[in-house]
Amino acid sequence: MISIALDAFGGDFAPDVVVQGAINAVNSSEGKFAVVLCGPEAEVKAKLKQFGYEGKLIQVVDAPELVAMDDHPTEVLRKKQNSGLVMCVALQKKGLVQASVSAGNSGAMMASCLMILGRTSENFARPPIGCILPTAAGQCILVDAGANVDEKPVVLKDFALAGSVFAECQLGIQNPKVGLLNMGEEEKKGPASVQEAYQLLKNAPVNFIGNIEGRDVVIGKADVVVCSGYVGNVLLKMYEGFYELHQKMFGKIDSEAGKKFNEAFDYRNAGGALLLGLKGTGIIAHGRSDAKAIEQAVKVAYAFAENKVPEKVGQKLAGIEA
Amino acid sequence: MISIALDAFGGDFAPDVVVQGAINAVNSSEGKFAVVLCGPEAEVKAKLKQFGYEGKLIQVVDAPELVAMDDHPTEVLRKKQNSGLVMCVALQKKGLVQASVSAGNSGAMMASCLMILGRTSENFARPPIGCILPTAAGQCILVDAGANVDEKPVVLKDFALAGSVFAECQLGIQNPKVGLLNMGEEEKKGPASVQEAYQLLKNAPVNFIGNIEGRDVVIGKADVVVCSGYVGNVLLKMYEGFYELHQKMFGKIDSEAGKKFNEAFDYRNAGGALLLGLKGTGIIAHGRSDAKAIEQAVKVAYAFAENKVPEKVGQKLAGIEA
Repeated sequence: MISIALDAFGGDFAPDVVVQGAINAVNSSEGKFAVVLCGPEAEVKAKLKQFGYEGKLIQVVDAPELVAMDDHPTEVLRKKQNSGLVMCVALQKKGLVQASVSAGNSGAMMASCLMILGRTSENFARPPIGCILPTAAGQCILVDAGANVDEKPVVLKDFALAGSVFAECQLGIQNPKVGLLNMGEEEKKGPASVQEAYQLLKNAPVNFIGNIEGRDVVIGKADVVVCSGYVGNVLLKMYEGFYELHQKMFGKIDSEAGKKFNEAFDYRNAGGALLLGLKGTGIIAHGRSDAKAIEQAVKVAYAFAENKVPEKVGQKLAGIEA
Repeated sequence: MISIALDAFGGDFAPDVVVQGAINAVNSSEGKFAVVLCGPEAEVKAKLKQFGYEGKLIQVVDAPELVAMDDHPTEVLRKKQNSGLVMCVALQKKGLVQASVSAGNSGAMMASCLMILGRTSENFARPPIGCILPTAAGQCILVDAGANVDEKPVVLKDFALAGSVFAECQLGIQNPKVGLLNMGEEEKKGPASVQEAYQLLKNAPVNFIGNIEGRDVVIGKADVVVCSGYVGNVLLKMYEGFYELHQKMFGKIDSEAGKKFNEAFDYRNAGGALLLGLKGTGIIAHGRSDAKAIEQAVKVAYAFAENKVPEKVGQKLAGIEA
């Protein structure tokens, strides 16, 4: 059976929502997978008891150290090996679980997955978060949604490769259109790093459609949106803000369009996003996750692990680079 | 009478929408202001004739050179002094008009206003576009919405000062809350330049509330959102995309909320945004402006010039820096 490791103390509302989310996930999944909660054992077990879980599908592994949101990623990996975050990935490396999920420090999760699980290709420098976003035309992949910062242009090119194969594997889009997020369509617009990335992308083995703007992302002009993790994170969180603003202005709209909008735009339905270019399934969940979002993140992790999505992405990436 | 200079060939759909927008603006404003269209004279006059304008409130000044969207800003200023864009600002410097509007190359417009009109304070390096955005809580000021790129941290601090006084003068908010756009709330998150700006803002004479995220912008957590022109432009254009997506999904919602949403989110109602920290009113309109957006941009320019907003912002900026 597939097991999912879950960072019990990761996220703004941990451990309560994480433990509750884990319970909801196993209770609604007919025994398809088990969950391993990594965190301070006594506290996690007390929460399981408090929430009335007595089943066999959730185990607890003791990981007493805590990771703060502003801990430096590589410091976490070096100095906090007994944290829930690092423990999840270490269990995965040993083959005891098939995926790891954290709603905690996303940079630390990326660094841990990168260093412990390893990348699928030596040519691939920095794994980005590949996030599926709703658009007016359907869905697109956003890379990077926040794992990296201050990337060199060649890293943005890697994001494009990884996003492109992810769109093929996950969304089933052949030859996906790759757009570079910028402040104008012209080659010479935007930050120097984006202008350099444009030149690299012109010669990269992807279907590069040039620069796209913020509007184009939402409209669905591209299947893959490439940008720095900083900008990608702002963009992703704006989606969340617009959903909340919409709820505030219009309430629950009881029509087909209203249901479709809620389904697509409520960030909790996405649950978590996949780190791309890694040997294994590492899932970043939203720091603000509630129990529903954590439940979805665990289910997303299960789906990616079951369908061997990281392996497929890795094979395609290796094929492109050959 | 106040006159507004308008770059007749600036924007994706110029000159048609610019000329039509100018006609609509003067026809619906009871002679409050005149418009001076700067562009290739024969073509602009032919358009005026084509659209049936025979009044006295629109003049044409010949400016035969054209500015491309990817022309380098300072090159435009040096080599294309007979373009509509530069001509507008030059007329303003001479006192022949009281404001300039362009929907063309925004970097070139910023550079022209900066070099020809001058900044209000020598301490203030780079004028940003201060744009009024709707939020779930009301309105906020976005600085910079796209005039600059690859800014140094001290420039982001200047954006905060300018945005803060603009929020006071234009939105009437006392001691406005200034947020720095980032990918997490923690001081040590985000790009190096944003982290450095954070430290400068802690000691700046503004009501700095720390880092804010994309969600917080839309929710209305801050009165002033400070970010690079690159990110600000992406953010602004995402608003546009969400409006279009909303129209596509829900059509025209015929309720109070629906009307309020359309009024606030249709970018054409904003028309144009003010360059901050300049000796005079320089307005950047959207490159995709249609005639309605141009009409609004001209009216916005009139309002800023009539109310002497740039002068008030300049006085407050000087007061802060003293």
